[in-house]
Amino acid sequence: MGIGDDAAILQPSPGTQLTVSTDTLVADVHFKSNDPAEAIGHKALAVNLSDMAAMGATPKWVLLNLTIPSYDKKWLNGFIKGFATLLAKYNVQLIGGDTTQGPLNIAVTVVGETLHAIRRDGAQVNDLIVVTGEIGSAAFALSNPRRSKVCNTQLKTPEPRLDIAAQVSGYATAMIDVSDGLLADLGHICEASEVIAVIELSQVPINPIVQKHHDWIQYVLAGGDDYQLCFTINMDDEENLPVDCHIIGQILAPHENQTEQVMVLHHHQPIVTNFKGYQHFKDE
Amino acid sequence: MGIGDDAAILQPSPGTQLTVSTDTLVADVHFKSNDPAEAIGHKALAVNLSDMAAMGATPKWVLLNLTIPSYDKKWLNGFIKGFATLLAKYNVQLIGGDTTQGPLNIAVTVVGETLHAIRRDGAQVNDLIVVTGEIGSAAFALSNPRRSKVCNTQLKTPEPRLDIAAQVSGYATAMIDVSDGLLADLGHICEASEVIAVIELSQVPINPIVQKHHDWIQYVLAGGDDYQLCFTINMDDEENLPVDCHIIGQILAPHENQTEQVMVLHHHQPIVTNFKGYQHFKDE
Repeated sequence: MGIGDDAAILQPSPGTQLTVSTDTLVADVHFKSNDPAEAIGHKALAVNLSDMAAMGATPKWVLLNLTIPSYDKKWLNGFIKGFATLLAKYNVQLIGGDTTQGPLNIAVTVVGETLHAIRRDGAQVNDLIVVTGEIGSAAFALSNPRRSKVCNTQLKTPEPRLDIAAQVSGYATAMIDVSDGLLADLGHICEASEVIAVIELSQVPINPIVQKHHDWIQYVLAGGDDYQLCFTINMDDEENLPVDCHIIGQILAPHENQTEQVMVLHHHQPIVTNFKGYQHFKDE
Repeated sequence: MGIGDDAAILQPSPGTQLTVSTDTLVADVHFKSNDPAEAIGHKALAVNLSDMAAMGATPKWVLLNLTIPSYDKKWLNGFIKGFATLLAKYNVQLIGGDTTQGPLNIAVTVVGETLHAIRRDGAQVNDLIVVTGEIGSAAFALSNPRRSKVCNTQLKTPEPRLDIAAQVSGYATAMIDVSDGLLADLGHICEASEVIAVIELSQVPINPIVQKHHDWIQYVLAGGDDYQLCFTINMDDEENLPVDCHIIGQILAPHENQTEQVMVLHHHQPIVTNFKGYQHFKDE
Protein backbone atom coordinates (compact mmCIF):
# COMPACT_ATOMS: atom_id res chain seq x y z
CA MET A 1 0.00 0.00 0.00
CA GLY A 2 2.85 2.41 -0.34
CA ILE A 3 4.83 2.36 2.91
CA GLY A 4 8.32 2.31 1.50
CA ASP A 5 7.33 4.34 -1.55
CA ASP A 6 7.48 8.13 -1.75
CA ALA A 7 3.76 8.25 -1.06
CA ALA A 8 0.97 5.90 -0.12
CA ILE A 9 -1.54 5.03 -2.82
CA LEU A 10 -5.24 5.06 -1.92
CA GLN A 11 -8.18 3.85 -3.91
CA PRO A 12 -11.27 5.54 -2.45
CA SER A 13 -14.56 3.66 -2.61
CA PRO A 14 -16.67 4.84 -5.55
CA GLY A 15 -19.30 7.45 -4.68
CA THR A 16 -17.78 8.44 -1.36
CA GLN A 17 -16.47 11.76 -0.18
CA LEU A 18 -13.14 11.82 1.59
CA THR A 19 -12.72 13.67 4.87
CA VAL A 20 -9.22 14.73 5.89
CA SER A 21 -8.18 16.11 9.24
CA THR A 22 -4.98 16.66 11.15
CA ASP A 23 -4.05 17.53 14.73
CA THR A 24 -0.73 18.24 16.39
CA LEU A 25 -0.02 17.26 19.99
CA VAL A 26 2.73 19.03 21.89
CA ALA A 27 4.16 17.96 25.25
CA ASP A 28 2.79 19.87 28.25
CA VAL A 29 0.09 21.42 26.10
CA HIS A 30 -1.94 18.42 24.95
CA PHE A 31 -0.45 15.85 27.29
CA LYS A 32 2.05 15.74 30.16
CA SER A 33 5.60 14.73 29.26
CA ASN A 34 5.48 12.09 31.97
CA ASP A 35 2.15 10.58 30.87
CA PRO A 36 2.52 6.91 29.99
CA ALA A 37 3.71 6.61 26.38
CA GLU A 38 0.84 4.25 25.66
CA ALA A 39 -1.69 6.89 26.75
CA ILE A 40 0.03 9.50 24.57
CA GLY A 41 -0.12 7.15 21.57
CA HIS A 42 -3.80 6.51 22.22
CA LYS A 43 -4.70 10.17 22.62
CA ALA A 44 -2.76 11.30 19.53
CA LEU A 45 -4.90 9.02 17.39
CA ALA A 46 -8.14 9.41 19.38
CA VAL A 47 -8.38 13.18 18.93
CA ASN A 48 -8.03 12.71 15.18
CA LEU A 49 -10.54 9.88 14.99
CA SER A 50 -12.88 12.17 16.93
CA ASP A 51 -12.74 14.62 14.01
CA MET A 52 -13.91 11.83 11.71
CA ALA A 53 -16.75 11.03 14.13
CA ALA A 54 -17.72 14.70 14.08
CA MET A 55 -18.00 14.55 10.28
CA GLY A 56 -20.07 11.37 10.36
CA ALA A 57 -17.21 9.69 8.50
CA THR A 58 -15.53 6.31 8.89
CA PRO A 59 -11.78 6.70 9.48
CA LYS A 60 -9.82 4.57 7.01
CA TRP A 61 -6.20 5.70 6.73
CA VAL A 62 -3.74 7.44 9.04
CA LEU A 63 -0.35 9.14 8.71
CA LEU A 64 1.88 9.72 11.72
CA ASN A 65 4.54 12.44 11.93
CA LEU A 66 6.50 11.66 15.05
CA THR A 67 9.31 13.91 16.25
CA ILE A 68 11.15 12.49 19.26
CA PRO A 69 14.19 13.76 21.14
CA SER A 70 16.03 10.43 20.99
CA TYR A 71 15.53 6.83 20.00
CA ASP A 72 14.00 5.68 23.30
CA LYS A 73 12.91 2.16 22.49
CA LYS A 74 10.80 1.67 25.59
CA TRP A 75 8.91 4.92 25.12
CA LEU A 76 8.44 4.19 21.40
CA ASN A 77 7.12 0.71 22.06
CA GLY A 78 4.61 2.10 24.52
CA PHE A 79 3.54 4.87 22.16
CA ILE A 80 3.11 2.45 19.27
CA LYS A 81 1.15 0.04 21.45
CA GLY A 82 -1.36 2.74 22.41
CA PHE A 83 -1.58 3.99 18.83
CA ALA A 84 -1.83 0.57 17.20
CA THR A 85 -4.41 -0.78 19.63
CA LEU A 86 -6.77 2.05 18.73
CA LEU A 87 -5.97 1.62 15.00
CA ALA A 88 -6.96 -2.03 15.26
CA LYS A 89 -10.10 -1.30 17.27
CA TYR A 90 -11.53 0.85 14.49
CA ASN A 91 -9.94 -1.02 11.59
CA VAL A 92 -7.87 1.97 10.48
CA GLN A 93 -4.69 1.52 8.44
CA LEU A 94 -1.40 3.33 9.04
CA ILE A 95 -0.28 4.22 5.52
CA GLY A 96 2.65 6.53 6.06
CA GLY A 97 4.41 9.11 8.13
CA ASP A 98 7.76 10.50 9.06
CA THR A 99 9.97 10.00 12.10
CA THR A 100 12.33 12.83 12.95
CA GLN A 101 14.67 13.76 15.75
CA GLY A 102 13.80 16.92 17.68
CA PRO A 103 11.65 18.19 20.54
CA LEU A 104 8.67 15.85 21.05
CA ASN A 105 5.88 16.64 18.60
CA ILE A 106 3.15 14.38 17.30
CA ALA A 107 1.11 15.21 14.22
CA VAL A 108 -1.51 12.77 13.04
CA THR A 109 -3.47 13.03 9.81
CA VAL A 110 -6.51 10.89 9.23
CA VAL A 111 -8.46 10.26 6.04
CA GLY A 112 -12.01 8.97 6.26
CA GLU A 113 -14.81 8.08 3.91
CA THR A 114 -18.45 9.06 4.04
CA LEU A 115 -21.42 9.04 1.73
CA HIS A 116 -22.61 12.31 3.25
CA ALA A 117 -20.40 14.49 5.45
CA ILE A 118 -22.10 16.20 8.39
CA ARG A 119 -20.92 19.76 8.59
CA ARG A 120 -21.30 22.50 11.13
CA ASP A 121 -23.56 24.62 9.00
CA GLY A 122 -26.67 22.45 8.85
CA ALA A 123 -28.42 23.29 12.14
CA GLN A 124 -32.02 24.41 11.59
CA VAL A 125 -34.30 26.52 13.79
CA ASN A 126 -36.16 24.29 16.28
CA ASP A 127 -33.56 21.48 16.01
CA LEU A 128 -32.73 19.81 19.29
CA ILE A 129 -29.17 20.05 20.63
CA VAL A 130 -27.63 16.79 21.77
CA VAL A 131 -24.38 15.90 23.53
CA THR A 132 -22.86 12.50 24.24
CA GLY A 133 -21.13 11.17 27.32
CA GLU A 134 -20.15 13.52 30.11
CA ILE A 135 -19.05 17.08 29.53
CA GLY A 136 -16.37 18.79 31.61
CA SER A 137 -14.63 15.67 32.87
CA ALA A 138 -11.38 16.26 31.01
CA ALA A 139 -11.02 19.85 32.24
CA PHE A 140 -11.82 18.73 35.78
CA ALA A 141 -9.18 16.01 35.59
CA LEU A 142 -6.61 18.47 34.24
CA SER A 143 -7.10 20.79 37.24
CA ASN A 144 -7.66 18.03 39.81
CA PRO A 145 -5.49 15.15 38.61
CA ARG A 146 -5.93 12.96 41.69
CA ARG A 147 -9.64 13.41 42.26
CA SER A 148 -11.28 10.98 39.83
CA LYS A 149 -9.98 7.96 37.98
CA VAL A 150 -12.91 8.06 35.54
CA CYS A 151 -12.31 11.71 34.63
CA ASN A 152 -8.61 11.06 34.34
CA THR A 153 -9.30 8.31 31.80
CA GLN A 154 -11.44 10.72 29.80
CA LEU A 155 -8.56 13.22 29.79
CA LYS A 156 -5.66 10.86 29.15
CA THR A 157 -7.22 8.21 26.89
CA PRO A 158 -10.42 9.67 25.45
CA GLU A 159 -12.55 7.39 23.30
CA PRO A 160 -13.64 8.84 19.96
CA ARG A 161 -17.45 8.60 19.69
CA LEU A 162 -17.42 6.72 16.40
CA ASP A 163 -20.09 4.46 17.91
CA ILE A 164 -22.59 7.30 18.23
CA ALA A 165 -21.51 9.00 14.99
CA ALA A 166 -22.29 5.88 12.98
CA GLN A 167 -25.78 5.73 14.49
CA VAL A 168 -26.76 9.39 14.09
CA SER A 169 -25.00 10.25 10.83
CA GLY A 170 -28.19 9.52 8.90
CA TYR A 171 -30.14 12.33 10.56
CA ALA A 172 -27.83 14.69 12.48
CA THR A 173 -28.14 18.11 10.83
CA ALA A 174 -24.87 19.53 12.18
CA MET A 175 -22.12 17.98 14.30
CA ILE A 176 -18.87 18.91 16.04
CA ASP A 177 -16.67 17.36 18.70
CA VAL A 178 -16.40 19.08 22.06
CA SER A 179 -12.67 19.69 21.99
CA ASP A 180 -12.61 23.47 22.53
CA GLY A 181 -15.35 23.54 25.18
CA LEU A 182 -19.13 23.17 24.92
CA LEU A 183 -19.91 26.88 24.60
CA ALA A 184 -17.19 27.46 22.02
CA ASP A 185 -18.01 24.39 19.95
CA LEU A 186 -21.78 24.85 20.00
CA GLY A 187 -20.97 28.46 19.13
CA HIS A 188 -19.10 27.19 16.03
CA ILE A 189 -22.26 25.35 14.92
CA CYS A 190 -24.38 28.47 15.55
CA GLU A 191 -22.01 30.69 13.64
CA ALA A 192 -21.74 28.36 10.66
CA SER A 193 -25.50 27.72 10.63
CA GLU A 194 -26.44 31.37 11.31
CA VAL A 195 -28.66 30.48 14.24
CA ILE A 196 -28.51 30.85 18.02
CA ALA A 197 -28.85 28.22 20.72
CA VAL A 198 -30.32 27.92 24.17
CA ILE A 199 -29.15 25.18 26.51
CA GLU A 200 -30.32 24.11 29.96
CA LEU A 201 -27.33 23.40 32.17
CA SER A 202 -29.26 21.00 34.37
CA GLN A 203 -29.77 18.76 31.32
CA VAL A 204 -26.06 18.55 30.47
CA PRO A 205 -24.62 15.18 31.53
CA ILE A 206 -21.98 15.84 34.18
CA ASN A 207 -19.97 13.49 36.33
CA PRO A 208 -21.21 13.82 39.96
CA ILE A 209 -17.67 14.44 41.17
CA VAL A 210 -17.27 17.31 38.73
CA GLN A 211 -20.60 18.76 39.78
CA LYS A 212 -19.44 19.03 43.40
CA HIS A 213 -16.49 21.23 42.48
CA HIS A 214 -16.98 25.00 42.92
CA ASP A 215 -15.70 25.57 39.37
CA TRP A 216 -17.99 22.97 37.79
CA ILE A 217 -19.79 25.41 35.48
CA GLN A 218 -16.52 26.53 33.98
CA TYR A 219 -15.36 22.92 33.45
CA VAL A 220 -18.64 22.05 31.72
CA LEU A 221 -19.08 25.13 29.56
CA ALA A 222 -15.51 26.08 28.76
CA GLY A 223 -13.38 23.06 29.61
CA GLY A 224 -12.69 21.40 26.30
CA ASP A 225 -10.62 18.29 25.55
CA ASP A 226 -13.70 16.10 26.07
CA TYR A 227 -13.98 14.56 22.56
CA GLN A 228 -17.66 13.98 23.03
CA LEU A 229 -20.00 14.91 20.20
CA CYS A 230 -22.39 17.85 20.10
CA PHE A 231 -24.95 17.65 17.31
CA THR A 232 -28.35 18.87 16.24
CA ILE A 233 -31.34 16.84 15.09
CA ASN A 234 -34.83 17.51 13.83
CA MET A 235 -37.38 17.19 16.66
CA ASP A 236 -38.94 14.20 14.87
CA ASP A 237 -35.72 12.23 15.27
CA GLU A 238 -35.65 12.40 19.06
CA GLU A 239 -36.96 8.85 19.34
CA ASN A 240 -34.11 7.55 17.17
CA LEU A 241 -31.37 8.75 19.50
CA PRO A 242 -29.09 5.97 20.76
CA VAL A 243 -28.17 5.58 24.41
CA ASP A 244 -25.71 8.04 25.94
CA CYS A 245 -27.20 10.89 23.90
CA HIS A 246 -28.62 13.76 25.95
CA ILE A 247 -30.83 16.58 24.72
CA ILE A 248 -29.56 19.79 26.29
CA GLY A 249 -31.28 22.54 24.35
CA GLN A 250 -32.71 23.85 21.14
CA ILE A 251 -31.74 25.93 18.13
CA LEU A 252 -33.47 29.31 17.78
CA ALA A 253 -33.63 31.92 15.07
CA PRO A 254 -31.22 34.81 15.56
CA HIS A 255 -32.92 38.03 16.64
CA GLU A 256 -31.96 41.67 16.96
CA ASN A 257 -31.60 41.88 20.72
CA GLN A 258 -29.52 38.77 21.20
CA THR A 259 -26.41 39.26 23.28
CA GLU A 260 -24.93 35.78 23.04
CA GLN A 261 -24.77 33.05 20.42
CA VAL A 262 -25.41 30.40 23.07
CA MET A 263 -27.73 31.32 25.91
CA VAL A 264 -27.31 29.23 29.04
CA LEU A 265 -30.15 28.59 31.46
CA HIS A 266 -29.73 26.87 34.80
CA HIS A 267 -33.04 25.59 36.12
CA HIS A 268 -34.73 27.99 33.69
CA GLN A 269 -32.81 31.05 34.93
CA PRO A 270 -30.37 32.71 32.51
CA ILE A 271 -26.78 32.67 33.73
CA VAL A 272 -24.04 34.98 32.61
CA THR A 273 -21.13 33.30 30.88
CA ASN A 274 -17.98 34.99 29.82
CA PHE A 275 -15.74 32.01 29.36
CA LYS A 276 -13.52 31.76 26.34
CA GLY A 277 -12.89 28.49 24.61
CA TYR A 278 -9.46 26.91 24.44
CA GLN A 279 -6.83 29.49 23.58
CA HIS A 280 -4.36 28.04 21.11
CA PHE A 281 -1.69 30.65 21.90
CA LYS A 282 -0.79 31.96 25.31
CA ASP A 283 -0.09 35.34 23.77
CA GLU A 284 -3.35 35.53 21.83
CA MET B 1 -13.91 23.19 1.34
CA GLY B 2 -13.95 22.43 5.01
CA ILE B 3 -11.53 24.81 6.69
CA GLY B 4 -13.56 25.68 9.74
CA ASP B 5 -15.16 22.23 9.90
CA ASP B 6 -13.72 19.28 11.85
CA ALA B 7 -12.28 17.92 8.61
CA ALA B 8 -11.89 18.97 5.01
CA ILE B 9 -14.09 17.27 2.46
CA LEU B 10 -12.50 16.08 -0.79
CA GLN B 11 -14.15 14.78 -3.91
CA PRO B 12 -11.49 12.85 -5.85
CA SER B 13 -11.74 12.81 -9.64
CA PRO B 14 -13.37 9.58 -10.86
CA GLY B 15 -10.92 6.87 -11.93
CA THR B 16 -7.89 8.36 -10.21
CA GLN B 17 -5.71 6.95 -7.49
CA LEU B 18 -4.84 9.19 -4.58
CA THR B 19 -1.26 9.53 -3.40
CA VAL B 20 -0.66 10.73 0.15
CA SER B 21 2.67 11.71 1.64
CA THR B 22 3.91 13.60 4.67
CA ASP B 23 7.23 15.04 5.81
CA THR B 24 8.29 16.73 9.02
CA LEU B 25 10.87 19.51 9.09
CA VAL B 26 12.71 20.25 12.30
CA ALA B 27 14.90 23.29 12.97
CA ASP B 28 18.64 22.69 12.61
CA VAL B 29 18.00 19.31 11.04
CA HIS B 30 16.11 20.17 7.85
CA PHE B 31 16.75 23.91 7.86
CA LYS B 32 18.69 26.43 9.94
CA SER B 33 16.71 28.31 12.57
CA ASN B 34 17.98 31.57 11.14
CA ASP B 35 17.07 30.76 7.53
CA PRO B 36 14.64 33.31 6.10
CA ALA B 37 11.10 32.32 7.08
CA GLU B 38 10.06 32.54 3.44
CA ALA B 39 12.68 29.94 2.48
CA ILE B 40 11.51 27.64 5.30
CA GLY B 41 7.91 27.95 4.10
CA HIS B 42 9.00 27.15 0.56
CA LYS B 43 11.10 24.15 1.52
CA ALA B 44 8.47 22.65 3.84
CA LEU B 45 6.08 22.44 0.92
CA ALA B 46 8.67 21.70 -1.77
CA VAL B 47 9.95 18.50 -0.17
CA ASN B 48 6.37 17.21 -0.01
CA LEU B 49 5.52 18.20 -3.57
CA SER B 50 8.70 16.37 -4.55
CA ASP B 51 7.17 13.16 -3.19
CA MET B 52 4.20 13.67 -5.49
CA ALA B 53 6.57 14.21 -8.42
CA ALA B 54 8.33 10.96 -7.51
CA MET B 55 4.97 9.14 -7.74
CA GLY B 56 4.11 10.72 -11.10
CA ALA B 57 1.16 12.37 -9.35
CA THR B 58 -0.30 15.85 -9.51
CA PRO B 59 -0.42 17.47 -6.05
CA LYS B 60 -3.91 18.75 -5.29
CA TRP B 61 -4.44 19.31 -1.57
CA VAL B 62 -2.19 20.15 1.37
CA LEU B 63 -2.46 20.16 5.17
CA LEU B 64 -0.03 22.13 7.34
CA ASN B 65 0.76 21.30 10.96
CA LEU B 66 2.75 24.23 12.23
CA THR B 67 4.17 24.30 15.75
CA ILE B 68 5.78 27.63 16.61
CA PRO B 69 7.33 28.88 19.85
CA SER B 70 5.37 32.14 19.86
CA TYR B 71 3.08 34.19 17.71
CA ASP B 72 5.80 36.01 15.74
CA LYS B 73 3.81 37.83 13.09
CA LYS B 74 6.78 38.79 10.94
CA TRP B 75 8.14 35.24 10.84
CA LEU B 76 4.69 33.82 10.18
CA ASN B 77 4.03 36.23 7.33
CA GLY B 78 7.34 35.25 5.74
CA PHE B 79 6.68 31.56 6.19
CA ILE B 80 3.20 31.82 4.73
CA LYS B 81 4.49 33.87 1.80
CA GLY B 82 7.02 31.17 0.87
CA PHE B 83 4.46 28.41 1.36
CA ALA B 84 1.61 30.16 -0.45
CA THR B 85 3.72 31.22 -3.42
CA LEU B 86 4.64 27.61 -4.10
CA LEU B 87 1.02 26.49 -3.53
CA ALA B 88 -0.13 28.98 -6.15
CA LYS B 89 2.63 28.03 -8.60
CA TYR B 90 1.41 24.44 -8.73
CA ASN B 91 -2.28 25.18 -8.19
CA VAL B 92 -2.39 23.24 -4.92
CA GLN B 93 -5.07 23.98 -2.30
CA LEU B 94 -4.45 24.30 1.45
CA ILE B 95 -7.41 22.43 2.95
CA GLY B 96 -6.54 22.17 6.63
CA GLY B 97 -3.98 21.97 9.34
CA ASP B 98 -3.27 22.78 12.94
CA THR B 99 -1.29 25.58 14.56
CA THR B 100 0.16 24.84 17.96
CA GLN B 101 2.52 26.49 20.42
CA GLY B 102 5.76 24.62 21.10
CA PRO B 103 9.29 24.12 19.75
CA LEU B 104 9.35 24.86 16.02
CA ASN B 105 8.12 21.87 14.01
CA ILE B 106 6.60 21.79 10.55
CA ALA B 107 4.69 18.78 9.23
CA VAL B 108 3.16 18.97 5.79
CA THR B 109 0.84 16.37 4.29
CA VAL B 110 0.06 16.42 0.60
CA VAL B 111 -2.60 14.54 -1.34
CA GLY B 112 -2.21 14.08 -5.08
CA GLU B 113 -4.06 12.44 -7.91
CA THR B 114 -2.75 10.18 -10.63
CA LEU B 115 -4.17 7.79 -13.19
CA HIS B 116 -1.17 5.52 -12.69
CA ALA B 117 1.21 5.85 -9.74
CA ILE B 118 4.88 5.21 -10.49
CA ARG B 119 6.33 3.10 -7.74
CA ARG B 120 9.83 2.06 -6.81
CA ASP B 121 9.32 -1.56 -7.72
CA GLY B 122 8.93 -1.33 -11.50
CA ALA B 123 12.55 -1.16 -12.70
CA GLN B 124 13.31 -3.83 -15.31
CA VAL B 125 16.62 -5.38 -16.34
CA ASN B 126 18.25 -3.28 -19.10
CA ASP B 127 16.27 -0.15 -18.17
CA LEU B 128 18.24 3.06 -18.32
CA ILE B 129 18.79 5.05 -15.13
CA VAL B 130 18.06 8.75 -15.39
CA VAL B 131 18.53 11.68 -13.00
CA THR B 132 17.38 15.28 -13.31
CA GLY B 133 19.15 18.52 -12.52
CA GLU B 134 22.39 18.48 -10.58
CA ILE B 135 23.19 15.97 -7.89
CA GLY B 136 25.18 16.80 -4.76
CA SER B 137 24.58 20.54 -4.78
CA ALA B 138 22.51 20.62 -1.60
CA ALA B 139 25.05 18.62 0.40
CA PHE B 140 27.85 20.82 -0.91
CA ALA B 141 25.95 23.96 0.10
CA LEU B 142 25.28 22.54 3.56
CA SER B 143 28.99 21.99 4.18
CA ASN B 144 30.19 25.07 2.30
CA PRO B 145 27.46 27.65 2.84
CA ARG B 146 29.31 30.62 1.33
CA ARG B 147 30.78 28.94 -1.73
CA SER B 148 27.97 28.90 -4.29
CA LYS B 149 24.78 30.90 -4.56
CA VAL B 150 23.29 28.39 -7.00
CA CYS B 151 23.92 25.43 -4.71
CA ASN B 152 22.60 27.39 -1.77
CA THR B 153 19.35 27.99 -3.63
CA GLN B 154 19.08 24.25 -4.28
CA LEU B 155 19.54 23.60 -0.56
CA LYS B 156 17.32 26.35 0.86
CA THR B 157 14.57 26.61 -1.73
CA PRO B 158 14.60 23.42 -3.82
CA GLU B 159 12.19 23.21 -6.72
CA PRO B 160 10.10 20.03 -6.89
CA ARG B 161 10.55 18.45 -10.34
CA LEU B 162 6.85 18.31 -11.14
CA ASP B 163 7.78 19.61 -14.60
CA ILE B 164 9.82 16.50 -15.43
CA ALA B 165 7.47 14.13 -13.59
CA ALA B 166 4.53 15.22 -15.73
CA GLN B 167 6.54 14.54 -18.90
CA VAL B 168 7.96 11.13 -17.98
CA SER B 169 5.08 9.67 -15.95
CA GLY B 170 3.74 7.93 -19.06
CA TYR B 171 6.82 5.72 -19.44
CA ALA B 172 9.04 5.84 -16.33
CA THR B 173 9.12 2.30 -14.91
CA ALA B 174 10.22 3.28 -11.39
CA MET B 175 10.85 6.67 -9.78
CA ILE B 176 12.08 8.20 -6.53
CA ASP B 177 13.28 11.61 -5.42
CA VAL B 178 16.92 12.01 -4.43
CA SER B 179 16.33 13.13 -0.86
CA ASP B 180 18.42 10.53 0.99
CA GLY B 181 21.36 10.56 -1.44
CA LEU B 182 21.76 9.07 -4.91
CA LEU B 183 23.23 5.73 -3.80
CA ALA B 184 20.64 5.23 -1.09
CA ASP B 185 17.68 6.25 -3.22
CA LEU B 186 18.73 4.28 -6.30
CA GLY B 187 19.32 1.44 -3.86
CA HIS B 188 15.68 1.74 -2.75
CA ILE B 189 14.57 1.26 -6.36
CA CYS B 190 16.91 -1.74 -6.75
CA GLU B 191 15.69 -3.33 -3.54
CA ALA B 192 12.00 -2.86 -4.36
CA SER B 193 12.50 -4.00 -7.96
CA GLU B 194 14.85 -6.88 -7.04
CA VAL B 195 17.53 -5.74 -9.49
CA ILE B 196 20.97 -4.15 -9.28
CA ALA B 197 22.29 -1.02 -10.90
CA VAL B 198 25.51 0.23 -12.41
CA ILE B 199 26.13 3.94 -12.76
CA GLU B 200 28.94 5.90 -14.40
CA LEU B 201 29.94 8.79 -12.17
CA SER B 202 31.26 10.83 -15.08
CA GLN B 203 27.72 10.88 -16.52
CA VAL B 204 26.13 12.25 -13.35
CA PRO B 205 25.31 15.96 -13.73
CA ILE B 206 27.35 17.85 -11.17
CA ASN B 207 27.80 21.57 -10.60
CA PRO B 208 31.39 22.49 -11.60
CA ILE B 209 31.97 24.15 -8.23
CA VAL B 210 30.98 20.96 -6.43
CA GLN B 211 33.23 18.90 -8.68
CA LYS B 212 36.28 20.93 -7.63
CA HIS B 213 35.79 20.08 -3.96
CA HIS B 214 37.91 17.21 -2.59
CA ASP B 215 34.76 15.62 -1.10
CA TRP B 216 32.73 15.87 -4.32
CA ILE B 217 32.13 12.13 -4.67
CA GLN B 218 30.60 11.97 -1.23
CA TYR B 219 28.36 14.97 -1.94
CA VAL B 220 27.15 13.40 -5.18
CA LEU B 221 26.65 9.83 -4.04
CA ALA B 222 25.60 10.26 -0.43
CA GLY B 223 24.63 13.90 -0.06
CA GLY B 224 20.86 13.88 -0.16
CA ASP B 225 18.42 16.78 0.18
CA ASP B 226 18.57 17.37 -3.60
CA TYR B 227 14.90 16.74 -4.48
CA GLN B 228 15.85 15.83 -8.01
CA LEU B 229 14.27 12.74 -9.55
CA CYS B 230 15.93 9.42 -10.23
CA PHE B 231 13.94 7.13 -12.50
CA THR B 232 14.24 4.22 -14.88
CA ILE B 233 12.99 3.93 -18.45
CA ASN B 234 12.92 1.31 -21.15
CA MET B 235 15.80 1.80 -23.61
CA ASP B 236 13.28 2.55 -26.36
CA ASP B 237 12.12 5.64 -24.50
CA GLU B 238 15.49 7.35 -24.45
CA GLU B 239 14.50 9.63 -27.31
CA ASN B 240 11.42 10.82 -25.40
CA LEU B 241 13.41 12.21 -22.48
CA PRO B 242 12.84 15.90 -21.83
CA VAL B 243 15.69 18.34 -21.30
CA ASP B 244 17.57 18.27 -17.99
CA CYS B 245 17.32 14.47 -17.88
CA HIS B 246 20.64 12.64 -17.80
CA ILE B 247 21.24 8.94 -18.35
CA ILE B 248 23.72 7.80 -15.72
CA GLY B 249 23.57 4.01 -15.86
CA GLN B 250 21.60 0.86 -16.39
CA ILE B 251 19.63 -1.74 -14.48
CA LEU B 252 21.16 -5.25 -14.36
CA ALA B 253 19.92 -8.60 -13.17
CA PRO B 254 21.07 -9.55 -9.69
CA HIS B 255 23.77 -12.23 -9.66
CA GLU B 256 25.41 -14.46 -7.09
CA ASN B 257 28.72 -12.65 -6.77
CA GLN B 258 27.37 -9.13 -6.45
CA THR B 259 28.71 -7.18 -3.52
CA GLU B 260 26.71 -4.00 -3.90
CA GLN B 261 23.22 -3.07 -4.99
CA VAL B 262 24.56 -0.08 -6.88
CA MET B 263 27.96 -0.41 -8.56
CA VAL B 264 29.70 2.86 -9.27
CA LEU B 265 32.14 3.28 -12.14
CA HIS B 266 34.28 6.36 -12.66
CA HIS B 267 35.57 6.54 -16.22
CA HIS B 268 34.83 2.80 -16.47
CA GLN B 269 36.81 1.89 -13.36
CA PRO B 270 34.89 0.53 -10.36
CA ILE B 271 35.20 2.70 -7.28
CA VAL B 272 34.61 1.58 -3.74
CA THR B 273 31.77 3.31 -1.96
CA ASN B 274 30.90 2.87 1.64
CA PHE B 275 28.74 5.89 2.19
CA LYS B 276 25.54 5.59 4.09
CA GLY B 277 22.47 7.57 3.10
CA TYR B 278 20.94 10.15 5.36
CA GLN B 279 20.69 8.92 8.94
CA HIS B 280 17.41 9.93 10.47
CA PHE B 281 18.66 9.47 14.02
CA LYS B 282 22.02 10.51 15.38
CA ASP B 283 21.98 7.50 17.68
CA GLU B 284 21.06 4.99 14.96
